[in-house]
Amino acid sequence: MCLKLKICYVCLNKMHTICAISTPYGSGGIAVIRVSGEGSVGLVDTLFSGRVKLADAKSGTVHFGRIQRAEEVLDEVLCSVFRAPRSFTGEDTVEIACHGSLYIQQTLLQWLVDAGAQMAQPGEFTRRAFLNGKIDLTQAEAVADLIAAQSKAEKDLALSQLRGSVSHELDGLRERLLQFTSLVELELDFADHEELEFADRTELTLLADEIEQKLSALMDSFRTGNAIRNGISVAIVGAPNVGKSTLLNALLGEQRAIVSDIQGTTRDTIEDTLIIDGILFRLIDTAGLRESADTIEQMGMERTLRAAQDAQIVILMNDSTKIEDWRLKIEDLKGTIIRVRNKADLVKVKGERLKDEGISISAKNGEIEPLKRELVRVARASMQTSAVMLSNARHYEAVARAHEAIVRVQQGLADGLSGELLSMDLQDCLTALGEVTGKITNQEVLSNIFSKFCIGK
Amino acid sequence: MCLKLKICYVCLNKMHTICAISTPYGSGGIAVIRVSGEGSVGLVDTLFSGRVKLADAKSGTVHFGRIQRAEEVLDEVLCSVFRAPRSFTGEDTVEIACHGSLYIQQTLLQWLVDAGAQMAQPGEFTRRAFLNGKIDLTQAEAVADLIAAQSKAEKDLALSQLRGSVSHELDGLRERLLQFTSLVELELDFADHEELEFADRTELTLLADEIEQKLSALMDSFRTGNAIRNGISVAIVGAPNVGKSTLLNALLGEQRAIVSDIQGTTRDTIEDTLIIDGILFRLIDTAGLRESADTIEQMGMERTLRAAQDAQIVILMNDSTKIEDWRLKIEDLKGTIIRVRNKADLVKVKGERLKDEGISISAKNGEIEPLKRELVRVARASMQTSAVMLSNARHYEAVARAHEAIVRVQQGLADGLSGELLSMDLQDCLTALGEVTGKITNQEVLSNIFSKFCIGK
Repeated sequence: MCLKLKICYVCLNKMHTICAISTPYGSGGIAVIRVSGEGSVGLVDTLFSGRVKLADAKSGTVHFGRIQRAEEVLDEVLCSVFRAPRSFTGEDTVEIACHGSLYIQQTLLQWLVDAGAQMAQPGEFTRRAFLNGKIDLTQAEAVADLIAAQSKAEKDLALSQLRGSVSHELDGLRERLLQFTSLVELELDFADHEELEFADRTELTLLADEIEQKLSALMDSFRTGNAIRNGISVAIVGAPNVGKSTLLNALLGEQRAIVSDIQGTTRDTIEDTLIIDGILFRLIDTAGLRESADTIEQMGMERTLRAAQDAQIVILMNDSTKIEDWRLKIEDLKGTIIRVRNKADLVKVKGERLKDEGISISAKNGEIEPLKRELVRVARASMQTSAVMLSNARHYEAVARAHEAIVRVQQGLADGLSGELLSMDLQDCLTALGEVTGKITNQEVLSNIFSKFCIGK
Repeated sequence: MCLKLKICYVCLNKMHTICAISTPYGSGGIAVIRVSGEGSVGLVDTLFSGRVKLADAKSGTVHFGRIQRAEEVLDEVLCSVFRAPRSFTGEDTVEIACHGSLYIQQTLLQWLVDAGAQMAQPGEFTRRAFLNGKIDLTQAEAVADLIAAQSKAEKDLALSQLRGSVSHELDGLRERLLQFTSLVELELDFADHEELEFADRTELTLLADEIEQKLSALMDSFRTGNAIRNGISVAIVGAPNVGKSTLLNALLGEQRAIVSDIQGTTRDTIEDTLIIDGILFRLIDTAGLRESADTIEQMGMERTLRAAQDAQIVILMNDSTKIEDWRLKIEDLKGTIIRVRNKADLVKVKGERLKDEGISISAKNGEIEPLKRELVRVARASMQTSAVMLSNARHYEAVARAHEAIVRVQQGLADGLSGELLSMDLQDCLTALGEVTGKITNQEVLSNIFSKFCIGK
């Protein structure tokens, strides 16, 4: 098997010129239409009339002119010209900044299609950047993440990936493993000479151990990376009427959940997201936990338990005014617990006893700053992992497969397995690592990745 | 009074650097943030790190780099640099194309503000283009119209105005009138010599006549220009149950109006717009006209009459299957009448008698092509006026004032009025004409115009 295998791009070999609106959908001051492909400059030139022909323009220059077809002038525009390979896609590219009327945007697109361009598929510009070797697959995926970024942490994660952090980490490991694998496979060519060992088994064991540890750390980082992308889940849990929904509303700054004095007001779990200090939290308000004969309420409580078990942070709420605190009995909590005493505004004397019982807040009066700070502190602490983080389920799955294979290699080395059997596990590991960065890939995976992009990128 | 009067721009003399997102609001592949002002290039340089400093970049060039503040990298971007006066605003301008995440767009804007830029007011870029003499006021207004353009006709109108058609027309007239006015005013300096006439009264009369005609034609063109911008109004009128609402739905291609066999189903007039062949129509479905005691229905019929009177096109519908055609009795119709026979699908024999009665359609079966063609034909015919069209109420108002003044001049000349009195009317005319293109203006008018722009343009 050729490890340097690249998929057959026959169908894409002669890449046509593609075009799409790259700016957000709608009407605005300006909009940008991107045209990419070997013939893009000439194609836009058939519609463009300015002081210079775009064909004569240098890469990285901007030109004012009119978009015109026969007698009809569509708009006055700015055209930026980028020559292959000095463009995002690695192909000749023209970016047309037109006035942001929807009519103009759509007509310009139509004219480009009439002139021979094809409408770009979702992610097709980035796909071309990948196919032309401008970026690897993790970087391509990072482009989509960057566009979807809602918070600083998310943006940082995507940008780090765009700048190749995941690829560098994995490619380094893969490169070294590849050398050993070649040596092991070389031994197979000399199968008659059983004493021959080109690949030093002690060194290989050390390398396998190192790789196993790094992959293991990367897999651990996925929990955090995933949390950054999807929000750190925070379940608000407690007895009825301690003020859970009021806290949700106070955190969100809006009347998201229905609040009443009646026990059992909340039945379904209510979710919403909130960004504090650049960190995305996914807040989950739950049904109050108590003995109840009401079937719907019981179903609500089951959901509460599940939410609490799955959450990365559990806000456990008590009512400051009640002496008998309700004690939470939830098993298998994975997340960090933050104890909170609500209704601080109703407590006159601040007794010693209460001091140990967590953070004092008044959700009703919006006095929740200490809780917000604690949320950020706990979230930050859980993020203090490696600089390189996995945030993508596809990467996680491939890394997990690589990890399984390297564990088999470790086992094989310990058992003194033959080079032939070792080689198979080594290949499995190399393949899995190669899939992450796209060194090894197939059309289906590519289609799946790029179909999640927006059109125009 | 100084005719070359320009408003005092003291408060704007030292124009700060402004910034805004210029692309439509939302998330997309890319977004463009525009920064304009004397210090814009240096300001962006404090956040930009690329292969070259933007300060060293030539006008009209694009540069790849990172937006970075201390240790934090925000995004990888393309910066286009435009040097004064070779930019839209006439000032140094940088356009930053970043990834289209809302988070990135907003953070970048925040960083620019932190670095000393101010958030641009609606239309502030265009306002600066006007203040810096890059465009006149009608052209500035055309920018907003272009962005709002929904149809080809609208786009053509705005683009023609952007390219100075209205200004050229008016400035030419104004220039010639100005010469005469100067001569008339010169006479006033020699008031002792009553026989002196520097300004030839015969020529002035000819010029006044010419100006009066042109202004009159421009005022006429407003009806069309306005129709292009707001849609040509088409009232669908007829007896109950001839299929008016069915026709509206068929034209729109959706179930916009409630349709039933019951007479008097439609009470309120229902409006919606439709573009056919690049022309915007404003369709108005009305209550059927008949004798009725129902108060609500009577109120509906009053509205029908009003809609028909105001409409530029009245579609008068009959039922092909009824021998006794209902005859429309509406006075003061201004628009063109298109006679239509509906329910063509129910007519078996096509008698001679019916042939003259208008266009045969079946709204129910969507057989309405002949009617659509007729709508376009009538609309086009009504648009065959002068090449220069007024579409802006502000322009119309000023032109109307100029027209009033020139009529007074004509009168004055006929009556042999003194130069002093003539001069006042001439000045009124010049002022009104100057207001259209912004040669004469004031802050209030400017603020009013630019406040209607979107931010970022």
